Amino acid sequence: MPYTRETWPIAAALHQLARPEVQHADASRWAADLEQVASVGFDAIDLTDSWLQIGDLGRSRLDEFRSVTQQLGLAVPALSITRRSVIDPVNGDDNLAYTQRTLEAAAELGIGVLSIGLHRPLTAAQREALWFWTADGAKDPEGDADTWNLAVTRFREIGKQAAAYGMLVSLELYEDTYLGTSSSAVRLIEDIGLSNVGLDPDLGNIVRLHRPIEDWREMLATMLPYTNYWQVKNYTRVEAAGGVISTHPAPLELGVINYRDAIRDAISAGFNGVLCCEHYGGDGLGVSAMNMRYLRTLLPAASVSERGIPNDISEISTTQPVKETVA
Amino acid sequence: MPYTRETWPIAAALHQLARPEVQHADASRWAADLEQVASVGFDAIDLTDSWLQIGDLGRSRLDEFRSVTQQLGLAVPALSITRRSVIDPVNGDDNLAYTQRTLEAAAELGIGVLSIGLHRPLTAAQREALWFWTADGAKDPEGDADTWNLAVTRFREIGKQAAAYGMLVSLELYEDTYLGTSSSAVRLIEDIGLSNVGLDPDLGNIVRLHRPIEDWREMLATMLPYTNYWQVKNYTRVEAAGGVISTHPAPLELGVINYRDAIRDAISAGFNGVLCCEHYGGDGLGVSAMNMRYLRTLLPAASVSERGIPNDISEISTTQPVKETVA
Amino acid sequence: MPYTRETWPIAAALHQLARPEVQHADASRWAADLEQVASVGFDAIDLTDSWLQIGDLGRSRLDEFRSVTQQLGLAVPALSITRRSVIDPVNGDDNLAYTQRTLEAAAELGIGVLSIGLHRPLTAAQREALWFWTADGAKDPEGDADTWNLAVTRFREIGKQAAAYGMLVSLELYEDTYLGTSSSAVRLIEDIGLSNVGLDPDLGNIVRLHRPIEDWREMLATMLPYTNYWQVKNYTRVEAAGGVISTHPAPLELGVINYRDAIRDAISAGFNGVLCCEHYGGDGLGVSAMNMRYLRTLLPAASVSERGIPNDISEISTTQPVKETVA
Repeated sequence: MPYTRETWPIAAALHQLARPEVQHADASRWAADLEQVASVGFDAIDLTDSWLQIGDLGRSRLDEFRSVTQQLGLAVPALSITRRSVIDPVNGDDNLAYTQRTLEAAAELGIGVLSIGLHRPLTAAQREALWFWTADGAKDPEGDADTWNLAVTRFREIGKQAAAYGMLVSLELYEDTYLGTSSSAVRLIEDIGLSNVGLDPDLGNIVRLHRPIEDWREMLATMLPYTNYWQVKNYTRVEAAGGVISTHPAPLELGVINYRDAIRDAISAGFNGVLCCEHYGGDGLGVSAMNMRYLRTLLPAASVSERGIPNDISEISTTQPVKETVA
Repeated sequence: MPYTRETWPIAAALHQLARPEVQHADASRWAADLEQVASVGFDAIDLTDSWLQIGDLGRSRLDEFRSVTQQLGLAVPALSITRRSVIDPVNGDDNLAYTQRTLEAAAELGIGVLSIGLHRPLTAAQREALWFWTADGAKDPEGDADTWNLAVTRFREIGKQAAAYGMLVSLELYEDTYLGTSSSAVRLIEDIGLSNVGLDPDLGNIVRLHRPIEDWREMLATMLPYTNYWQVKNYTRVEAAGGVISTHPAPLELGVINYRDAIRDAISAGFNGVLCCEHYGGDGLGVSAMNMRYLRTLLPAASVSERGIPNDISEISTTQPVKETVA
Repeated sequence: MPYTRETWPIAAALHQLARPEVQHADASRWAADLEQVASVGFDAIDLTDSWLQIGDLGRSRLDEFRSVTQQLGLAVPALSITRRSVIDPVNGDDNLAYTQRTLEAAAELGIGVLSIGLHRPLTAAQREALWFWTADGAKDPEGDADTWNLAVTRFREIGKQAAAYGMLVSLELYEDTYLGTSSSAVRLIEDIGLSNVGLDPDLGNIVRLHRPIEDWREMLATMLPYTNYWQVKNYTRVEAAGGVISTHPAPLELGVINYRDAIRDAISAGFNGVLCCEHYGGDGLGVSAMNMRYLRTLLPAASVSERGIPNDISEISTTQPVKETVA
């Protein structure tokens, strides 16, 4: 069933609530954190692992977590693992194992989307910066067939594990990784070749960079046929005549990406997946709520099925044969 | 009759909807585009010719257009011709002819304001820039009496043609043209010397420039006695100590121009004309709607006539004798 | 009694209304100015002396002022004196006398908080700048024991005078003064050593500077135990890789300071004082009203006393013995 304006799942990311003590805190702390999210109007969360790593919780704590979300009336349609690249040169194996046990825990909670990526932990320069995207992060090795194929193989392994639970896997657009341009991201998805493994066109990751970038409309057009989950965020962006580039987090409606057009194009392309509101900078939760309310005004009031858009989200993923290749 | 908060015509500009195919599209496409404008709360449009050139439509298509706006309940109080300078060194003659046949079509639709200017098509550098105002555009020749007089003569010709239909002509403030400073703009209006030809103090055109600018309060004060139409938009503006200037599109309420003061001063000066919401960058339509709602809160709740402000918009235009001179 | 979301005093600063003629204008002008403030939803003002200097009004005019605020239903919980440093090398004595007679007038009006600081009149460079904080202002002499002690002595004198009326004195965080870093500000308060003299953690004054700054979370944490009044404002802030820093006034919810966290931390620390909304740039009054509405959503719906937070604001000020020392 296609979603409508009223029913579309729009989840809050939980980066703003991330604190070292959360993982081992009482369920009452989890409840207090999530109560903030509910209080600004969200009825769904993206279980962001910077806040809580459910793959590392025991069974009874997992039950506690489920109980907290149920009491608050919060759905959990998606889970995001961040900065745990399965091809990280140091921690790739650990990250794969972590991803797989997180997937199992997510399945137990009935979570339908696993969001992962190839971005690695922040570098020292990024951690020191006011905004981490103004400093360089780690880069995937361009033209390295072995590493590319490792990514394909491991994502495929994760994808198959997810498929067994009817779960989608979504790979996040992120600069300087094999998912760093729309064309590379699509190539990776095609090489993986599973209908439940698609893309998250997180355009904000790109438009915030202080360097020349790909046009967001082109990125989106390229990625939409493969999109099965979508983290939305926006930035102002100035490119001065002298070459100085400057960006700042902005509400969805005020930044350089036109989400009115972007959402309309996505729906036309058949997108019917979970939307996730992220916002860095200042009151991320407040702005995320503002974004959620704005998104609802852009979504179709009536059922999209009446417009002849495919009902089954799996139909929009590619099913082309696997071709392992080099980025 | 002076307008009130409830009745003031606030029109949406249509730049965001401009696409090459609109001109020859079915009326159903026009309706779909304008339905978006109505759906965010506008009850009036500025018939921006970047979207549709009614001067180049035949009679039956003009009727189709009228029918579309009537069905959507959209008033059309103004029409803007953009980048068709009547003193363009290459296309000036064509632009005059285009303006005149557009004026005729506008009259047929009962449109009361024709908005025109001296800015020319975007240069290659402007088209390549993320924001076109960060690159240089064409410049009118300073101190060239012949060109200045050509502008005066042609605007006077257009003004007289408009007057025959009871229509106002409004000339838009735009950098590097004879309408590029408030004093030059006023001098041009005085040289034209027609009571139905006035100014559009589109301050946003100036405050967004990445160079030193005239103070917006001074520009507005100089232009208000001649203002008969007003395209409103706003920008953030940073002037750093080292001389770096940076600007970004912003909602009316958040940019550097204080529209609370500006609207109050305009009403005190007797302004009773059409307001037009433009916004470049991101969701221009959404921000325009935000601006429209904000403007209503700034407009007088009761009739302004009770405050002794002139009722007749023609009274605010200059009627000084014509003095042709050099900018 | 601790405040709740509904009762918390949130005052509008009046900088936007400052004009030379206000001081000697009829009460009807005062009423017209303040009616604007009431019309956007404020029920309280900070009697900012850039708008009106009540210390220089006679008795009958003071009664007129009281009458105006009463008719408009505006509370006056605080009064701010700006740029009248009691250690100004030129006007320090005059500024002390002005502060003291303003305090007397404030007492007569029943105003509970006197907000003062060490910042001096804008320099010529600041007056010429688009945003005054992009140019350097006057600096208090670092390591000058006599001047530091003069500040302590004079603030203590003012504090004692205020205490006689049950009034709080709040010193404003401001760059390049003895109140320019959180640690120096705290040291000054401790040296003054009066329970009714505390701090105003006006973080916006710091985050808007185009230079490296102290982390706002650290500043706030250091100052909260001494906070007895709070001017809130926010800015976007970009620190580009090449070292270019750029800031712009922003609504509370959109700037770099996370006021959702800041307000929560303040309430946890026992803050129960007046909040004051300031905003420079564009429609300062409109954005202040936006900020006021946003703040209400962050404040506790129920009485904070139920959470075991001290009820008496004087309890949160330090009562340590006086130690005069050097900054």
